[in-house]
Amino acid sequence: MAPIGDTEYDLVVLGGGSGGLAAAKEAAGLGAKVAVLDYVTPTPIGTKWGLGGTCVNVGCIPKKLMHQAALLGEAIHDSRSYGWELPPPENIKHDWEQLRDAVQNHIKSVNWVTRVELRDRKVEYINGLGKFKDNHTIQTTTKQGEKLLTSKYILIAVGGRPEYPDIPGAIEYGITSDDIFTLKNAPGKTLIIGAGYIGLECAGFLNGLGYDATVMVRSVPLREFDRQMGDLVAASLQEKGVKFLNKCLPKSIEKQADGKLLISWTDPNETFSDTFDTVLFAMGRHASTKELQLENAGIKTEGNRGKINCVNEQTNVPNIFAVGDVLYGRPELTPVAIHAGRLLSRRLFGNSTMFMDYENVATTVFTPLEYGCVGISEEKAIEKYGEDKLEIYHAFYKPTEFFIPQRSIVHCYLKVIALRADDQKILGMHFLGPQAGEVIQGFASAMKCNFTMKILKNTVGIHPTTAEEFTRVNITKRSGLDPNPQACCS
Amino acid sequence: MAPIGDTEYDLVVLGGGSGGLAAAKEAAGLGAKVAVLDYVTPTPIGTKWGLGGTCVNVGCIPKKLMHQAALLGEAIHDSRSYGWELPPPENIKHDWEQLRDAVQNHIKSVNWVTRVELRDRKVEYINGLGKFKDNHTIQTTTKQGEKLLTSKYILIAVGGRPEYPDIPGAIEYGITSDDIFTLKNAPGKTLIIGAGYIGLECAGFLNGLGYDATVMVRSVPLREFDRQMGDLVAASLQEKGVKFLNKCLPKSIEKQADGKLLISWTDPNETFSDTFDTVLFAMGRHASTKELQLENAGIKTEGNRGKINCVNEQTNVPNIFAVGDVLYGRPELTPVAIHAGRLLSRRLFGNSTMFMDYENVATTVFTPLEYGCVGISEEKAIEKYGEDKLEIYHAFYKPTEFFIPQRSIVHCYLKVIALRADDQKILGMHFLGPQAGEVIQGFASAMKCNFTMKILKNTVGIHPTTAEEFTRVNITKRSGLDPNPQACCS
Repeated sequence: MAPIGDTEYDLVVLGGGSGGLAAAKEAAGLGAKVAVLDYVTPTPIGTKWGLGGTCVNVGCIPKKLMHQAALLGEAIHDSRSYGWELPPPENIKHDWEQLRDAVQNHIKSVNWVTRVELRDRKVEYINGLGKFKDNHTIQTTTKQGEKLLTSKYILIAVGGRPEYPDIPGAIEYGITSDDIFTLKNAPGKTLIIGAGYIGLECAGFLNGLGYDATVMVRSVPLREFDRQMGDLVAASLQEKGVKFLNKCLPKSIEKQADGKLLISWTDPNETFSDTFDTVLFAMGRHASTKELQLENAGIKTEGNRGKINCVNEQTNVPNIFAVGDVLYGRPELTPVAIHAGRLLSRRLFGNSTMFMDYENVATTVFTPLEYGCVGISEEKAIEKYGEDKLEIYHAFYKPTEFFIPQRSIVHCYLKVIALRADDQKILGMHFLGPQAGEVIQGFASAMKCNFTMKILKNTVGIHPTTAEEFTRVNITKRSGLDPNPQACCS
Repeated sequence: MAPIGDTEYDLVVLGGGSGGLAAAKEAAGLGAKVAVLDYVTPTPIGTKWGLGGTCVNVGCIPKKLMHQAALLGEAIHDSRSYGWELPPPENIKHDWEQLRDAVQNHIKSVNWVTRVELRDRKVEYINGLGKFKDNHTIQTTTKQGEKLLTSKYILIAVGGRPEYPDIPGAIEYGITSDDIFTLKNAPGKTLIIGAGYIGLECAGFLNGLGYDATVMVRSVPLREFDRQMGDLVAASLQEKGVKFLNKCLPKSIEKQADGKLLISWTDPNETFSDTFDTVLFAMGRHASTKELQLENAGIKTEGNRGKINCVNEQTNVPNIFAVGDVLYGRPELTPVAIHAGRLLSRRLFGNSTMFMDYENVATTVFTPLEYGCVGISEEKAIEKYGEDKLEIYHAFYKPTEFFIPQRSIVHCYLKVIALRADDQKILGMHFLGPQAGEVIQGFASAMKCNFTMKILKNTVGIHPTTAEEFTRVNITKRSGLDPNPQACCS
């Protein structure tokens, strides 16, 4: 091991994504000498991208923009009923290339701003893959050749990459969310394999942009979320035209003479096949730790996805830390990585004693009808407290804006999971409907301050919004009463 | 006075708006015998409407729908940049009649549902104007003739109506928000007199639908709100094309031979005039208590707008109560009326001891860029605590969806007003941006549970949303640092 006292840097960060950059900037702002290494291994079909990590390049940002494009398609449809004189729907086409270029141009501008910001904050940026030589030394290869960096602390923030199935043709012909946002040609008829949030979001925006989208589900949709909500999200997609192949596993992918992909799959009983233009794997992600030669520093991983089990972001090697998607058992979310990274740097360089709180982190699935939640699922609550100790409030509701275009309201639903005793402490909130992310964020703050049903019921609504429906909820599952909408304004 | 013991009803409600209906339904559900009287005095130009009150017929609901129509106009414009192939903007027209009919059809369906719901809940509905004969007796005239109703309790929930200025031509040629949503012909070039929230909302949606809209401001825009936010809302409207006549007072309205209205007005120095197709007064509202003959029951009003000063919704006559817009010094908001009405009925008939909490009621101004707030303004905070005791956090921010269509971001701004001491208790939150109502609602709940800056800063954001910008705010006004946007995802 290299000596602690004589290092070139105070902090070397491996990975220039949300968590790594936040930690690096915070540390530099506190006077530390910091370097960030960022390197993107191209996907099997050759996609690569710039500084900023998954969120900016192949995650939240392009996903939200394509989601927005799909929502605008629905808005155009709504517009007619609100009096706007537009051509008939069948005459309104979408131009994939234009959207892709608009999204990519925005991403490039963010890459640029990110780089400028690092320079302004005196963080050294190295476009190279870092590997551990020992617990204080990183070896990297850049265009300028090989380099050794020594550092007091090292932060692993390399994030993760999508999994591929072990079937013939997967690597050659399949793509993932790493490729979809730069696709040269419109995706056409697409099979999405995997029904986690990434799969469902891709299916949602592709369907909204006019492409035939099918989701192949191994177990259940949104497996890690509240069961009822996951099923409702899938049902809302299905109602909009997304097809589902349930309890199915892919077997092989072949390229036909006409360029289309022939996919075979099985359900518990039979084997099927069909042709698609695009096959997208959304089967989960593994941490990008294999290339780091963690063993040279003695860092242990946990489980089969290369993740690192940390206590307060500290690995088993005391001067080496990790934030973001590489963490074992933590939510893979940009703001979680940012927050953890920033707090870590404050502890390392700013005398802070504040630790990251991974409890009650809110999240949103940006399917066309969005699903936002904070706190625990109904299943987790029952498992933890028992059904008798819980009160589950729920309601269907009708967004005011949905009436005129006669949009379907059957999946607009919300649920509040509370303890039954006393003021009914709230354990989880779940919302399926428009703008779910905007709706849930404030409640996530409330849940950090001992939020109860008593307080929720005493919160005056903002009328007319969808968020106010939470303040109106009064039917419990236990009562068996109809959770269908009340009158709108009294 | 009639004897208490021998009344026909337990509760007679004057006014079938949000507050009255909520109280009536709650009381009936608790076993009370209830009648609701509702009668709409037509406007000077003859507009009238059905059961449900201001919100449903001439307030929140039609306003939100026309706001939505205007937002959809912006969405159509955005759509092009997101790849949707649409005709050039100048070829996309809006059809006022179609929107008006769609809005009115929705309102009629709500009127109908409201009536059915009253019947189902065994609340007697009387379409007549109620007047006090004494503190237990209401006299009413319906199509079936005159009628006397005696009741143990009486609830005044008649709401309010718009003010007209005392200038020549106002009553003959002007309209108000009571008329705009049923206007036979498109409003055309419109002068809105008054810059409260109703005036600005009308200006916003009219401008968004393609009409020339001018707002005449006597003092300042959104006078009752945070000053900085009010000015920003006006600036955001101006940027979209709404014109403002500041520090002006109307003098007269004449109808010209060509049917157009010639308006004269003065600013502190000069007299001006111009022609408009429509003049809309949005100069505040008075309580509709004049017709009630309150003096027969001994009920006192306060101030010059017919309002009633209550303690816990109880008037100076112990068996007579009031909720909603007739209340002196209370927010004129639908959910406030509903909540107060419901809680009142529970106290009167359900042994409840829970009182309405009028503190920290959130509200939203549905201008094209929406303004949501909860808690107090910066001015009120300074007045109450002194500048030294406060920390004002603020930020401009860039909604992700605004980049591709290159929408203006200059007015996307938020502000958190907190005490400086300890964990920095939050006193007010202000948000100008898209979906402000959805964003603010949850924070309104948080503010009911001792919300502090410490908790807000420890709330993990939902990325990418606009609501998460609250969790990222870290620049104080005191610091003098630039509140302009940080990088988007790190």
